[in-house]
Amino acid sequence: QDWRSRGQAHIVSYVILKWTLCLLIGVISGAVGFFNNLAIENLAGIKLLCTSNLMVANKYLMAFGVFAVTNFVLTMLAVTITSSIAPASAGSGIPEVRAYLNGVDAPDIFSPSTFLVKIFGCIATVSSLHVGKAGPMVHIGASIGALFGQGRLCKGHLTGKWLKHFNNDRDRRDLVTCGASAGVAAAFRSPVGGVLFALDSLSSWWRSSLLWRAFFTTAIVAIVLRALIDVCIKGKCGLFGKGGLIMFDVTSTSVVYHLVDLLFVVLLGIIGGVLGCFYNFLMEKVLQLYSSINEKGTKYRLLLGGTISIVTSSVLFGLPWFASCQPCPDSTKERCPTGGKMGNFHNFQCPPNYYNDLASLFFNTNDDTIRNLYSSGNELFDPFSIILCFIASYFLGVISYGVVAPAGLFVPVILTGAIYGRFIGMLMGSRSNLDHGLYAVLGSASFLGGTMRMTVSVCVIILELTNNLLLLPLVMLVLLISKAVADSFNENIYGMILKLKGLPYLEGHAEPYMRQLTVSDVVMGPLCMFNGVEKVGNIVHVLKATGHNGFPVIDGTPISSTPYLFGIILRSHLLVLLRKRNFLPTCALTSIDLSKEYSSDDFVKYGYVKPDCIEDIELTEEEMEMFIDLHPFTNTSPYTVVETMSLAKALILFREVGLRHLLIIPKHNRKCPLVGILTRHDFMPEHIFGLHPTLMKSRFK
Amino acid sequence: QDWRSRGQAHIVSYVILKWTLCLLIGVISGAVGFFNNLAIENLAGIKLLCTSNLMVANKYLMAFGVFAVTNFVLTMLAVTITSSIAPASAGSGIPEVRAYLNGVDAPDIFSPSTFLVKIFGCIATVSSLHVGKAGPMVHIGASIGALFGQGRLCKGHLTGKWLKHFNNDRDRRDLVTCGASAGVAAAFRSPVGGVLFALDSLSSWWRSSLLWRAFFTTAIVAIVLRALIDVCIKGKCGLFGKGGLIMFDVTSTSVVYHLVDLLFVVLLGIIGGVLGCFYNFLMEKVLQLYSSINEKGTKYRLLLGGTISIVTSSVLFGLPWFASCQPCPDSTKERCPTGGKMGNFHNFQCPPNYYNDLASLFFNTNDDTIRNLYSSGNELFDPFSIILCFIASYFLGVISYGVVAPAGLFVPVILTGAIYGRFIGMLMGSRSNLDHGLYAVLGSASFLGGTMRMTVSVCVIILELTNNLLLLPLVMLVLLISKAVADSFNENIYGMILKLKGLPYLEGHAEPYMRQLTVSDVVMGPLCMFNGVEKVGNIVHVLKATGHNGFPVIDGTPISSTPYLFGIILRSHLLVLLRKRNFLPTCALTSIDLSKEYSSDDFVKYGYVKPDCIEDIELTEEEMEMFIDLHPFTNTSPYTVVETMSLAKALILFREVGLRHLLIIPKHNRKCPLVGILTRHDFMPEHIFGLHPTLMKSRFK
Repeated sequence: QDWRSRGQAHIVSYVILKWTLCLLIGVISGAVGFFNNLAIENLAGIKLLCTSNLMVANKYLMAFGVFAVTNFVLTMLAVTITSSIAPASAGSGIPEVRAYLNGVDAPDIFSPSTFLVKIFGCIATVSSLHVGKAGPMVHIGASIGALFGQGRLCKGHLTGKWLKHFNNDRDRRDLVTCGASAGVAAAFRSPVGGVLFALDSLSSWWRSSLLWRAFFTTAIVAIVLRALIDVCIKGKCGLFGKGGLIMFDVTSTSVVYHLVDLLFVVLLGIIGGVLGCFYNFLMEKVLQLYSSINEKGTKYRLLLGGTISIVTSSVLFGLPWFASCQPCPDSTKERCPTGGKMGNFHNFQCPPNYYNDLASLFFNTNDDTIRNLYSSGNELFDPFSIILCFIASYFLGVISYGVVAPAGLFVPVILTGAIYGRFIGMLMGSRSNLDHGLYAVLGSASFLGGTMRMTVSVCVIILELTNNLLLLPLVMLVLLISKAVADSFNENIYGMILKLKGLPYLEGHAEPYMRQLTVSDVVMGPLCMFNGVEKVGNIVHVLKATGHNGFPVIDGTPISSTPYLFGIILRSHLLVLLRKRNFLPTCALTSIDLSKEYSSDDFVKYGYVKPDCIEDIELTEEEMEMFIDLHPFTNTSPYTVVETMSLAKALILFREVGLRHLLIIPKHNRKCPLVGILTRHDFMPEHIFGLHPTLMKSRFK
Repeated sequence: QDWRSRGQAHIVSYVILKWTLCLLIGVISGAVGFFNNLAIENLAGIKLLCTSNLMVANKYLMAFGVFAVTNFVLTMLAVTITSSIAPASAGSGIPEVRAYLNGVDAPDIFSPSTFLVKIFGCIATVSSLHVGKAGPMVHIGASIGALFGQGRLCKGHLTGKWLKHFNNDRDRRDLVTCGASAGVAAAFRSPVGGVLFALDSLSSWWRSSLLWRAFFTTAIVAIVLRALIDVCIKGKCGLFGKGGLIMFDVTSTSVVYHLVDLLFVVLLGIIGGVLGCFYNFLMEKVLQLYSSINEKGTKYRLLLGGTISIVTSSVLFGLPWFASCQPCPDSTKERCPTGGKMGNFHNFQCPPNYYNDLASLFFNTNDDTIRNLYSSGNELFDPFSIILCFIASYFLGVISYGVVAPAGLFVPVILTGAIYGRFIGMLMGSRSNLDHGLYAVLGSASFLGGTMRMTVSVCVIILELTNNLLLLPLVMLVLLISKAVADSFNENIYGMILKLKGLPYLEGHAEPYMRQLTVSDVVMGPLCMFNGVEKVGNIVHVLKATGHNGFPVIDGTPISSTPYLFGIILRSHLLVLLRKRNFLPTCALTSIDLSKEYSSDDFVKYGYVKPDCIEDIELTEEEMEMFIDLHPFTNTSPYTVVETMSLAKALILFREVGLRHLLIIPKHNRKCPLVGILTRHDFMPEHIFGLHPTLMKSRFK
C-alpha cells in the first residue's frame, strides 16, 4: 500500500535488491544457525565430558556438583540477559512471528537487542535445560529478515538510501517470512520443510512469488550449512560431531510394511493425539502459573529459572540410578562403555563392560539421543528405562518452556515422541515387521501432530531429517490421525500461547455465529472524524484522547448540502503533519499545493524504531488555532462495506486483503456518510461476545 | 457465499462428507492413474515387442510397417474420440484447470464425457506419440473432484441429498484442487509434490485447511498406488514392469560435490533456461499454426494427427540407422543385446553382441528411457547418438503437443532435459566429480524450470522421483537459474497456452500501469439496472439483450428523493424467478413474503449441467406486463469500491476475495447511486489498452 507510484528504474533496482536481501538473509541465517549449533554442542559437550570423567573416577557427588552448577549458571545467565535486556526474546518466538505475519505488531520482537539476546540466551538454555533450539532459530531468522527490512539500523544512522524501498509493511512481512523459512531450514537442515513451515503455520497471506523467494532463501541456507559442515568435518570445530545439525540418517533401514503394520501406525497416531492434547493442556496450566510468577519481577524470574534448572539436573542425574546395568553388546563398532567421549554407551555407575541405558539417553545432547532412538535394530533399551525416560522427558518439557529465556518446543517434542514410539515398537515385538527405529520416527511424528498440529510441514521436515522418502505414507497417516484426534479436544500449542499472550490473532475463516451479525452490530463507541480542513487544536485533542490509528475524513463542501466521505488518514501521517507545522491561517481551501513540501520519505514508517508520540509534539496556542488541509495526505479510496453486510463476509474482506481499517457506509443516504470503522479488535470473539452475550450460548449448542 | 445459513447438524455432516469425498477422490485417482500406466505399458510394450522380434528376424520393412501402423491407428483413434465426443479433453488440461481455479468456467472441461475421453485418449496418444501422461492425469484427477462436487451425476437423476451441500463454487473449487493434487501425486507417485504443484501452479486461492485436505488426498493416492503395485509385483500385470509408475531410483548414486561442480550446475541452469524459453517460443508458433488448421473441422484434425504420427514413427525408426553399433559391455547383468524383451540394449540392425545405443533410447517407453539416462556410471551412449536423440526429442515434443488429443508436456520435457544433461556430463568428463546420471537429473530440472517455470513443486517432484534428498541444493540452484534466465525472455508455457485459448486468467498482482488508472476509467458501456420491483418485460428484455451475469438493484422509494443501491441480483436467480412465474399484478410493494415459496434448492447451481437460458422461458404478453419483487432474492451487501480507487487496489480486492462482480459507487452523492460494475474482463490488459492506448507505450518504455 505505497501511496505514491514508483518509476520504472526504481522497480528494477527494487527487484534486484529484494533478491540480494534474500541471499543475505539466507547466508546470515545459515551462519547463525551453524554458530548456534557449534556453541551448544561444545558447551554441552564439555559439560558432559567433565561429568563423565568424574563418574568414571567414582567421584559421584562432585560429578553431580559440576553438572548441576554448570546448568544452574547457564540458566541464570540466560534468564538474566533475557529479563533485563530483551524480555521479548523469551520463549520460542514462533507465536510472535505468526502474530506479526498476521498483522499484529508486538513491541520489540524484532529489535537488535532481542536478536542478540535470542542467540546467546538460546545457546545457554539449550545447553542446560530440556528445551529446543528450533523455535528460537525461527525467531532469529525472522529477526534477520526484519532488521533488513526496516530501513535503518538505529535511530537516524546508517539510513542507506537503497533500503528505503522496503519501508512498507508488505515488503517487511515478506522479508520476515523469508527469514523465518531460513530459520527453520537452518534449524533442521530442511529447505523444503522450512518453506512449508512458513506457509503452513506462520504466514497469513501468501503469494506464489513469495514461495519462490522463500525457497531461494532456504536453498542458500542449505548450501551455506553444507559448506560450513565441510569445514568442520576436518575436525576444527572442537567437540562438534556430525550430530551438530539435526540429521538422523535412517536410510539404512529398509521400509517394508504390510496392512497389519498400518494398524499399529494408526494406534500410534491415536496415542500421539491423546498425549499431545494432554501436553497442551498441561502446558497451558503451567504457563498460566508461570506468567503470574514472572509478572512479579526479575527476582522471581530468576528464582523460577533456578528451580527448574535444579530440578532438571536432579532428574537427569538421579534417574539413571534406578536403571539396571546392561552388559555391553559384542557386535557394536563403538567403544562400550563409552569412555570419556560422548557416545551411546554410558558407563555411569556401572562396572566396566556394562552400560547404563538411561544414562545413554540422558547424558547426551538431545540430538544424539534422538539419533540413538532412531537407530535401527539394536535392542539397547530396557522397557523400564524407556518408561522412566518418557515420563521425565514429557514433564521436563512441560515445565521448562515457561522460563523467561529463549526456548523451543520442537526438539523436546520430537524426543518425547521418539521415546514412546520406540516403546510401542518394543511392545509390538515380532507382531510387526517395522523396525524399532521407524517406530521412533513415527512416534515423533505423532507427537508433533498432537501438539503442534502442523501436518504438511512437519511431514516434510521429518522426511528431510531422516532422508528417507519411503516413510512418507506412514508419516502422513500418523500425522493426520494424531492431529484429528487432538483437534477434537483442544487447540494447537501456538494458538494457545498466542491467546495467553493476548495477541489479537485474526483467524482466516469466519465462525458460524458471525453470519448472524451484520457489521453494524459490532461497531461501537463514538466515531472520531475530521473535516477536510481541520483545526490543529481539534486534531491534537482527538489524537491525545483516543488511541485509534486511522481517522475518517469527511468533506462538507458548501455546495452540496450533505457531507460525504473523503477518505481515511492515518495517525502516523497526522503526526508528521503536526511536526512539520505547515499550518494554514484560515479554514478556507487554498490553491497552494502543500503536499510538494513533503517528500514521501517523511511518511516512511521505520521498523522497530519507536513511533512518534503525540505528547512529544509541542505546539503554541497560536498554532493550535490554525488549520491543516488534510486533503493531499488522505487516502481517498479506502475500502468500504455497506452496513448490512454480514460480519463473516466483512471478515473475509478484512483478512484476505489484509486491512487495518474498514469503513462502514450506510445503506440509505442519511445525514452522516459513515456508520463506523472496523478494526482488528472488532472481529475478536471476546469483543463480539461482550456485545452479544446471547451468541455465546448458541455457539456451544 | 451461501446465502442461507446452515444449522449445526448440517455443519457436522458437511465436514464428515468433505473428508469422505477426499478419501474417494484419492482412491479413485490412484486407481485410475494405476490403470492408465498399466494400459500404456502394455500397449507400448506389445508394440515394441512385435517390432523388435521382426527386426531380429531381419524383416526390417515389415517391422517398420507394424510400428508405424500401430502408432497411426492409436493416434487416429485418440483424435477421433477427442474431436467427436469431447473436444475439451484435448491437450494437457493443466491450463484449463488453472483457469477454473482462477474463476473461469471453460465449457465442458469437467463433464463425464471429457473425463472418459481423457482417460482412453491419453492411453492411446501416450503409447503412440512423443507426449506425456502427467498433464492429462492432472485433468483426470481434477475431473474426479469436480464430478463429486456437482451434486448430480446427470440431469435430474441421482441427486443424492447429501451431495447438495457441495453446490457452491468454493467447495467445488476445493474438491477440484484436491483432485488435481491427487492427479499429480498419481502421475509421479509424489504426494508432497502433488500438493505443492496444486499450490504453486494451479490454485489462485489457498487456505491452510485446504493444504491439509489436499495432503490427505495425496497420502491416500500414495497408499493406493503402493497396494496396487504390491499386487503387480507378483507378475499379474502383463508387460507392466516396475517402471510403470515413474520412479527413477538413484539413491545408489552418492552425491558428493565441490565448488567447481556448482559452476557446471550453473551452466546447466543457463542452458536449460535458454533452451526452455526457445521451446516455449516454438511451441507458441506451432500451436498458433495448428489451431488455425484444427478450426477447419474434424477432417483436418485427423490429417494433422496422422501426419504427426507418421513423422514420429519415421523419426524413431529412421534415426537409429545413423548410429554406429557398439560392442556389448562385459560387466552388465542384463542380457546384451536385449532379445525380445524391452530392455536397455537394443540390437536393432546391429550384428549379435553389438547394440545400437540410439535404438536403446528410442525403442523404449519414455519412462524406461528416462531411467536409462538417470542410471549412474555407465558409458552406454555415444555423443553423436545423444545429440541426434536430443534434436529428435526436442522437436518431436514441440510438434506433438498441438494434436487434438489428450497429451501432456511433462514427460517429453523431462526426457529432453535428461538427454542434454547427460550430454553435458559427458562433455565435462573428468573435470567434474558428479555422476553422469546426476547430470541427467539436473538437466531435466533445468529444462522443467525453463519451460514450466515452476520451482518448488518441480523440485519436490524431482526429489520424490529420484528418492534422493541430498540432490536438493543442486536441483534448487539449477531451477532458480533456469527460471530466472527464461523469465527474462518470455512467459511460462501454461500462461502462453491460456492466452492462446483466450481464457481470461486474472493475475494475482497488479501491473504498474494499473496504479495510474482509477476504476471509473475502465468501466464502460451502458449500465443495466433493475428497480426493487421490476416489470417482467423489462427483465426479459435486459436478459436477452445482454450477457451480464449480475445486475444491480436500485431502490427508489417514494419517501426519499434520491435512489439508493439495494444490492445485486444474479442472472441465474432471475431465470429461476421467471421460470416460477410468481408475478405480482402491480408494482406496489406487498406484504406477502414470496421468498417462502422458494427453497434454497431452487437456486442451487449444478456443475456441468447446462445453465438455463432466457430463450427457453416463454412468457405470455399478460405476464410480461406483471411485476416481480426482487428484494428477497437480492444480495443486499455486495462488495463496493469508491470510484476514485486505483485499479490496482480494486484488483487486489477482486482477486483476493474472489469476486465476480464489484460495484462502483460514486464519491459524491449524485443522482445515480452507482457508477458501474467491474467484472473479470475489465481487468484484462486487452480491455484496458483498448480504452487507454497511450498506456501501451508507457508500459514498455
